Amino acid sequence: MIIQFEQGIEEVQKDAIINRVKGLKYKPTEVKTQKGDYLVGTGKKDFDIRSIGYMDGIKDIHIVSDDYKLVSKKWKVNPTVIDLGDGVVIEEGGFQIMAGPCSIEGEDQIRKTINHLKSQGITIMRGGVYKPRSSPYAFRGLGIEGLKLWYELAKEAGMKIITEVMQVSQIAEMDPYVDIYQVGARNTQNFNLLDELGKGTDKPVMIKRGISGTIDELLSSAEYVFSGGNERLLLCERGIRTYEKATRNTMDLNAVAVLKEKTHLPVIADPSHGIGLRNHVEPIALASIMAGADGVIFESHEIPEEAYSDGQQTLNFSESNRLIDRMRKTFELRKSF
Amino acid sequence: MIIQFEQGIEEVQKDAIINRVKGLKYKPTEVKTQKGDYLVGTGKKDFDIRSIGYMDGIKDIHIVSDDYKLVSKKWKVNPTVIDLGDGVVIEEGGFQIMAGPCSIEGEDQIRKTINHLKSQGITIMRGGVYKPRSSPYAFRGLGIEGLKLWYELAKEAGMKIITEVMQVSQIAEMDPYVDIYQVGARNTQNFNLLDELGKGTDKPVMIKRGISGTIDELLSSAEYVFSGGNERLLLCERGIRTYEKATRNTMDLNAVAVLKEKTHLPVIADPSHGIGLRNHVEPIALASIMAGADGVIFESHEIPEEAYSDGQQTLNFSESNRLIDRMRKTFELRKSF
Amino acid sequence: MIIQFEQGIEEVQKDAIINRVKGLKYKPTEVKTQKGDYLVGTGKKDFDIRSIGYMDGIKDIHIVSDDYKLVSKKWKVNPTVIDLGDGVVIEEGGFQIMAGPCSIEGEDQIRKTINHLKSQGITIMRGGVYKPRSSPYAFRGLGIEGLKLWYELAKEAGMKIITEVMQVSQIAEMDPYVDIYQVGARNTQNFNLLDELGKGTDKPVMIKRGISGTIDELLSSAEYVFSGGNERLLLCERGIRTYEKATRNTMDLNAVAVLKEKTHLPVIADPSHGIGLRNHVEPIALASIMAGADGVIFESHEIPEEAYSDGQQTLNFSESNRLIDRMRKTFELRKSF
Amino acid sequence: MIIQFEQGIEEVQKDAIINRVKGLKYKPTEVKTQKGDYLVGTGKKDFDIRSIGYMDGIKDIHIVSDDYKLVSKKWKVNPTVIDLGDGVVIEEGGFQIMAGPCSIEGEDQIRKTINHLKSQGITIMRGGVYKPRSSPYAFRGLGIEGLKLWYELAKEAGMKIITEVMQVSQIAEMDPYVDIYQVGARNTQNFNLLDELGKGTDKPVMIKRGISGTIDELLSSAEYVFSGGNERLLLCERGIRTYEKATRNTMDLNAVAVLKEKTHLPVIADPSHGIGLRNHVEPIALASIMAGADGVIFESHEIPEEAYSDGQQTLNFSESNRLIDRMRKTFELRKSF
Repeated sequence: MIIQFEQGIEEVQKDAIINRVKGLKYKPTEVKTQKGDYLVGTGKKDFDIRSIGYMDGIKDIHIVSDDYKLVSKKWKVNPTVIDLGDGVVIEEGGFQIMAGPCSIEGEDQIRKTINHLKSQGITIMRGGVYKPRSSPYAFRGLGIEGLKLWYELAKEAGMKIITEVMQVSQIAEMDPYVDIYQVGARNTQNFNLLDELGKGTDKPVMIKRGISGTIDELLSSAEYVFSGGNERLLLCERGIRTYEKATRNTMDLNAVAVLKEKTHLPVIADPSHGIGLRNHVEPIALASIMAGADGVIFESHEIPEEAYSDGQQTLNFSESNRLIDRMRKTFELRKSF
Repeated sequence: MIIQFEQGIEEVQKDAIINRVKGLKYKPTEVKTQKGDYLVGTGKKDFDIRSIGYMDGIKDIHIVSDDYKLVSKKWKVNPTVIDLGDGVVIEEGGFQIMAGPCSIEGEDQIRKTINHLKSQGITIMRGGVYKPRSSPYAFRGLGIEGLKLWYELAKEAGMKIITEVMQVSQIAEMDPYVDIYQVGARNTQNFNLLDELGKGTDKPVMIKRGISGTIDELLSSAEYVFSGGNERLLLCERGIRTYEKATRNTMDLNAVAVLKEKTHLPVIADPSHGIGLRNHVEPIALASIMAGADGVIFESHEIPEEAYSDGQQTLNFSESNRLIDRMRKTFELRKSF
Repeated sequence: MIIQFEQGIEEVQKDAIINRVKGLKYKPTEVKTQKGDYLVGTGKKDFDIRSIGYMDGIKDIHIVSDDYKLVSKKWKVNPTVIDLGDGVVIEEGGFQIMAGPCSIEGEDQIRKTINHLKSQGITIMRGGVYKPRSSPYAFRGLGIEGLKLWYELAKEAGMKIITEVMQVSQIAEMDPYVDIYQVGARNTQNFNLLDELGKGTDKPVMIKRGISGTIDELLSSAEYVFSGGNERLLLCERGIRTYEKATRNTMDLNAVAVLKEKTHLPVIADPSHGIGLRNHVEPIALASIMAGADGVIFESHEIPEEAYSDGQQTLNFSESNRLIDRMRKTFELRKSF
Repeated sequence: MIIQFEQGIEEVQKDAIINRVKGLKYKPTEVKTQKGDYLVGTGKKDFDIRSIGYMDGIKDIHIVSDDYKLVSKKWKVNPTVIDLGDGVVIEEGGFQIMAGPCSIEGEDQIRKTINHLKSQGITIMRGGVYKPRSSPYAFRGLGIEGLKLWYELAKEAGMKIITEVMQVSQIAEMDPYVDIYQVGARNTQNFNLLDELGKGTDKPVMIKRGISGTIDELLSSAEYVFSGGNERLLLCERGIRTYEKATRNTMDLNAVAVLKEKTHLPVIADPSHGIGLRNHVEPIALASIMAGADGVIFESHEIPEEAYSDGQQTLNFSESNRLIDRMRKTFELRKSF
């Protein structure tokens, strides 16, 4: 169950409610976010919602049978809106594009990418300064200094940025220079990181589906951040690991459709990782839109062949332009339905 | 290598060519289809194409390094066109819709479905009379009598039909009453069946991807039918088995994009099996089109709740109408790109 | 439900029972095998077993809630014994080894293999004369003539043989020359073949788990053969398809343990296909025994490097000798527990 | 390439070697562990090993073509020995058993478990005080206070302990109270955690295979810790995620066999998570030994039904006793081969 507290609820009222919840053999967890004050009750016994609902200090009460609660559409029918300021908004009914290189490589690359994106009317740039790499000997990103440089140049240009955070200790350091945190596919179940992104920041967080994570696990990971105190969340389908070897991952567009039904959070598609082959990014990006994605994130680079990482799935600027144009037309069609 | 023989090649010329191929340590296989006369050479050694190309009786010669040969786009750039007669054509650049119930149930159901489809301008009806079922105790279809009845009614209405064949002995019996044979996901590697669909019929064959078949295996299965003597082939993506439990299968739209690059055969998408959930068939169908599918096959029934099989993934006629309309608009957009 | 009829039950008694079963909204299916006469009822409603059990002609009646019925351990606690004659028996509590080449190649190879196996006290030889191959251009086996030759040589030597059947039409032809039919991993859900192995032969059938078949699907496939009329069945775990690329398949020894709990049929392990790497066949074979397998089937060849197929996973005779010795010692240990 | 430096190598010698490596277009990484001083060179060009090998300060030089280097058996043929002190050693040729509850629950539970294990001659106890849980509302363990209590009781009893570490900040805190760190399946690619377990502790680390991690990824994760400075490493197979629903995971014993070939690190099997079903833990544990495992870790609890977590796969003490006895006998047999 989810109990929404009234603003200004008194402690004594809260205690009474918590006691009542415990009395029903439900485990209560208090959640306080930027937007609200909740009590999540987890348990299995049936109960009469009226036996609590009348109590003082309660704005609303909902029964949510899913394992995840706060991210479920069952209690919050209105979709979550992520407002990044300056008119940049991610929400159902809109369509946001995020593009940029796999790795931030230096000032020249940043400037060129910003110019490219601005010329296409894109306002969110992606890029990695902390790179999770299977091998300890591979390039691991420019780190915090790279982030500062990038953020400054982006800000000048009116561009928002999304970048991956890999561990708890990076959050405080990164926070002034980030518009959206990304949690990578290898960290989807790094629960301490998720906890801290709930407690330690007010910035939006986009959580990628795990390498072979289920849809329910992705929702539960989002529940960690929300219950930690941050409800500014996005989910991202980026392909799952299967036996098929012809593509890097298997883009699971079923998941986009199912997530749009199960949660009020925006759902983003990442076709670059989803198929991993440059010449097939476009059809998968367009397909993602028809499957219901609220946005697409993809990799672009002036010269993909020279990118520090992921070159094989990165578009050059001219391919990127074509894709952006077609995605917008595809979204317009979907909107007309 | 693939050698296309000239029409009217003499036996002595053929023998000379075969000997030359053997001399290169390539294993020759003669293939004679409705459309041409070929020699497929399998081997690994490099050779100079000119050392054969000049020989009498050769129309063209191609080096194809893929494991599959005749279905590869490497030798045949022009897409295969499947002409069913009466103006019904499946081909790249066009878009065909096939719809109908999982199982053929009886005359009333057939008539209603035909009327529904005709009202939407659909000219290919799907339906099963031989049903592969995991349990021996489940309904296994109306069999040949059901097929005859259905075919007659469809013919009257100018409707083509596609239906599953499960074993070699059914082919002769079914052949007069079938417009397209379907090979189901459990028979994708039933090599005797594939062989016989090459040798024993001239009708088109649509091969579904195996339950957990690779893209390459699907192409090799098509190679069986082609090399058996039948090049009227279609491939169908219908979702693969993964660990995800929220959907029946995982629709692999990457495969549609990759197949369109690798083969000259038309590629059809089956969103009904691909996601297995009625309320999500539409977004996945539309996504398939943007991924590049040349057609979509889906399940529809007057009253899905009462269908003999697959009701949970079957659209009713009104849902079906909406889907058809949106698919056509989506295809128009893709065509405009 | 499963009703075991008494021997000599009269038709009128049978009809009465069938009517009663229908009256309970259960669908009755009559099954007649070499060993018994059954009525399988499929349905979901609860009923009182006494309302049928007293009827004339009933030997016993069992409630089996699994999707598969006749192969379930729930009604038949005593394990099935497969008696091949001449003292060769496959059964729980015993341990049978089947070995031999992937493909039967000719008389010399057969003789050498028989001599090798006899020297080790092995009495069942494996080998393929019909080979399912992904590519139509690969070697597809010596066919029926190869089988006849092999059978003759084996019989002389007192050796039983197990070999794959690929399609219905082969059964009649093969039947005199086969001791155990094998259904391959690509045919586990070839339901017509399974049906016919139930109806058209009295010989034992070993069904391999599908390429990515579930444990329940394997049991349902066995149910096909049993309900067709043949209860002389064995199941075989041979590895499943996963994302792991370091091995050919992923040997699922969990399945051996689970199958031993769920069914009364003997369970055989195939470590050769299960790992697909010659130098690792031994540890996986020995592990299979500790997991509970009633037998092991593996590939051996005088000169694996020259085998027509599967050489990379085939043991030479000296490796084979060592494995056999160690398997027997491992089985002795397990038996002592 | 891996260069082992001589003890006491001078900086000027080191610099010369590094320069030579760079000259070969190899990227040098210095590694300093408890046991040695190395230079790892990553690159792809062929080179003549003699062009470096003669240089001053080099003890030995090895070419290792795998993506992972220091954990490969290609340069270090002698297996790694993990000595925990007081005669407790994990190593190839020996066999270690680690057992205990999923979660540490309190003093009484700890004492009872210790008594049980001691009575069986077990000297390593497992247990979790930080629990990774899919849901934020589930029990997450007793934390550092639980660890201190447990460690004290274990130390008194001469028992070593292994427990999971979930994030970097826990390492310093936990270090005095841990004998072996465990990295869980959800953190196998938490690269910051791996890095810090290399740099921030001298204690042994057991890394579990990822939920759907490949064998190569597991080795690369171990490479992180080793190259961070800690070569006291163990690997653990604990089952992978597949489509099969009858078991919690699919225990991949192929991986045990393959890992024993590829790396010099000890390999441990976890049958409790590998199958996830209490009544099948024993056969899978015994199978693991025959597959080549150097040790087994399993879950045991006085009353599994009342365990805070994982009760469905936990043995009670009497089942545990039987398993331990049979594992030892199985290991004795393997050793005799």
